[in-house]
Amino acid sequence: MEDKLGHLYAERARTVKASLIRELLKMLLNPNVISFAGGWPDTETFPVDEMIEIANDVFRRRAACVFQYGTSEGLPELREALAARARDREGIPGIEPDQILITSGSQQGMELAGRVLIDPGDVVLVGLPTYFGATGAFRSYQAHLGGVPVDEAGMRMDGVEEEVRRHQREGRKVKLVYVQTNFHNPMGVTLSLERREKLLELAAAYDFLVMEDNPYGDLRYSGESLPALMALDREDRVIYARSFSKIFCPGIRLAWVAGEKALIRRMVISKQFVDVCTNTLSQHLVYEFIRKDSLDRRIDLNIAHYRSKRDLMLEMLDKHFPPEVEWTRPDGGFFVFVTLPEPLDAGELLKDAIDREVVFVAGQPFFLDGSGANTLRLSFTGAPADRIEEGIRRLADLVRSKLG
Amino acid sequence: MEDKLGHLYAERARTVKASLIRELLKMLLNPNVISFAGGWPDTETFPVDEMIEIANDVFRRRAACVFQYGTSEGLPELREALAARARDREGIPGIEPDQILITSGSQQGMELAGRVLIDPGDVVLVGLPTYFGATGAFRSYQAHLGGVPVDEAGMRMDGVEEEVRRHQREGRKVKLVYVQTNFHNPMGVTLSLERREKLLELAAAYDFLVMEDNPYGDLRYSGESLPALMALDREDRVIYARSFSKIFCPGIRLAWVAGEKALIRRMVISKQFVDVCTNTLSQHLVYEFIRKDSLDRRIDLNIAHYRSKRDLMLEMLDKHFPPEVEWTRPDGGFFVFVTLPEPLDAGELLKDAIDREVVFVAGQPFFLDGSGANTLRLSFTGAPADRIEEGIRRLADLVRSKLG
Repeated sequence: MEDKLGHLYAERARTVKASLIRELLKMLLNPNVISFAGGWPDTETFPVDEMIEIANDVFRRRAACVFQYGTSEGLPELREALAARARDREGIPGIEPDQILITSGSQQGMELAGRVLIDPGDVVLVGLPTYFGATGAFRSYQAHLGGVPVDEAGMRMDGVEEEVRRHQREGRKVKLVYVQTNFHNPMGVTLSLERREKLLELAAAYDFLVMEDNPYGDLRYSGESLPALMALDREDRVIYARSFSKIFCPGIRLAWVAGEKALIRRMVISKQFVDVCTNTLSQHLVYEFIRKDSLDRRIDLNIAHYRSKRDLMLEMLDKHFPPEVEWTRPDGGFFVFVTLPEPLDAGELLKDAIDREVVFVAGQPFFLDGSGANTLRLSFTGAPADRIEEGIRRLADLVRSKLG
Repeated sequence: MEDKLGHLYAERARTVKASLIRELLKMLLNPNVISFAGGWPDTETFPVDEMIEIANDVFRRRAACVFQYGTSEGLPELREALAARARDREGIPGIEPDQILITSGSQQGMELAGRVLIDPGDVVLVGLPTYFGATGAFRSYQAHLGGVPVDEAGMRMDGVEEEVRRHQREGRKVKLVYVQTNFHNPMGVTLSLERREKLLELAAAYDFLVMEDNPYGDLRYSGESLPALMALDREDRVIYARSFSKIFCPGIRLAWVAGEKALIRRMVISKQFVDVCTNTLSQHLVYEFIRKDSLDRRIDLNIAHYRSKRDLMLEMLDKHFPPEVEWTRPDGGFFVFVTLPEPLDAGELLKDAIDREVVFVAGQPFFLDGSGANTLRLSFTGAPADRIEEGIRRLADLVRSKLG
């Protein structure tokens, strides 16, 4: 496309690249395609009847609020309900409503954190691999991004310390470590308790903040829950991002971010100039779902639904994939991460897979350093259960043909 | 509030100040207060019955889309409908759907324009006075803001040219002129046709872009409509921001921005890392309102409703206010702008007004240069019609007592 006004663009706009996944998703309108690509919830899980019932009630009863501007912080009763949930269900005892900001998706929470914290050249550490929405948000503020390896127990803390010290030696300040604690995107792995504690120690020792991103945490299918970083934090160094997109419905664009009071206040003020306030309709709808205990019932149903899909995908991988291929076995969330034997290239594989009407996301874009060419991410949530085996079989055939 | 993490904030976060109006609004929960403060639509205008009817239909019929992620550009059929409206109703003949980006309120359109265009130190010209949401958005990107006087015919073009040349001499580039074309916030004035044409001439001559902000344009109560800058533009230099917040419901946080294709594409890519996509529920609801011609019926009802409120407020100002006070007579929108005789200070007046349970917005925060201490903004939309006379009488008494 011709950039006829390109000479007037800001420097930051020249370097931002489109999210590859979101670009890929636009090609997926073909209903024959079996998609393991998007991190999208299964549309079958949307609580349509109850949404209609609640909309009828709340649109009528609270019209003057539902359709009007709200405060930038978010609906007071929703912030209170979320604080109560954080106290009761996540072991974050002292949390107060004014430590919570309702956001337009958790992407906005990351964006606002970047806005409030990142000066050009400040270092943000992220996983290798990591969710690239976060990378994109921090990059908008000219963050210097550093990568830390992720293994089966999550982000490596020896890697964090090493990177912090290296940047320190080179005269740069690590301000923020972005970490996905549960069912990591794209790897599906969970940060161990030992590493959680170590991360907070490092944050105190080297004076940085931690952005704990936990959109999938409520969707645990096996194993024991671990305490949130924010529950372990004694220094107010954690900014905790949660979301309704994965556990409920993404179309309502509702998430929240919690943290130290004055920092959250800064983010609220910034939000006034970003989008004024979060959609009030969505806030009222979700508040009613929480008030009636329907959100928790919905989450329980989703856990059962996705657990069987995860089990099915792992079973089909075991059954069909050649032994040279490795993959993670997630305890929750949406993703299985596959490592192909080198020198197989997942980007090349994807081109052939599209021809066979099965798609996934190649792993390389999740790696800051350009590694991961032989990796790929499979989502087990979006495809219908009765198509998962067929999709995995097509991929397995392809991989086998590449292996020769 | 103690900023215990303040040493970790970004430079930009240290300088952002809270929107005074949004702070004031939080104090307005007292139902005895007569408010001429917020630029909020009258809650009486919200189409509750039809919203419920449409929600019932569209939630059921299109659940898999309504509750799911959408594309960052916005719902395709809504973009098409908005392009068709721009062609048919605003005389913008060639506009195509991919020149339109659906945003989470028009504040986001300004934010994205700032993000894509403004490098630190680039100049953005705004009115004296101007809507300070725009100022805040551009300031986040370290824009150098310049002020241009606004009079009864809108922003002064001799002032624009003078400022552009002055900055040029001083080595700064004017990249953007932000202008409100219809029923200016806070002044209520409309940019004359002659000045619209002149602004586009200047944009071409000095190579800058124009952000045309037009949230109130559909709410004209008297006089003839003027063509949008975008309809007059032959060089693709206009970024046109429209909104459903003032003409319909702000709670749905829905707006759109139109412009040159490659520039809009840059804004779409930026939006991926800002909030992924705009609320899909809201987009489906509004699309149905447009498809059924209900939006236009609603706008017509709102015009009649607000016209009578405007007439009433102007009548009451004529009747009660002392002759030393001056005010604008808007042809549309939400606001009357009042100039008190100097040295009266509207900020001081507001403190006393709060005690008498009537509130407005002092004018000074709308002026970049700190002038306007003797001005104030009255909104005639929010207060119930049967309270407008009482509110104006209280204010008039106060002004009279100050005049001594």
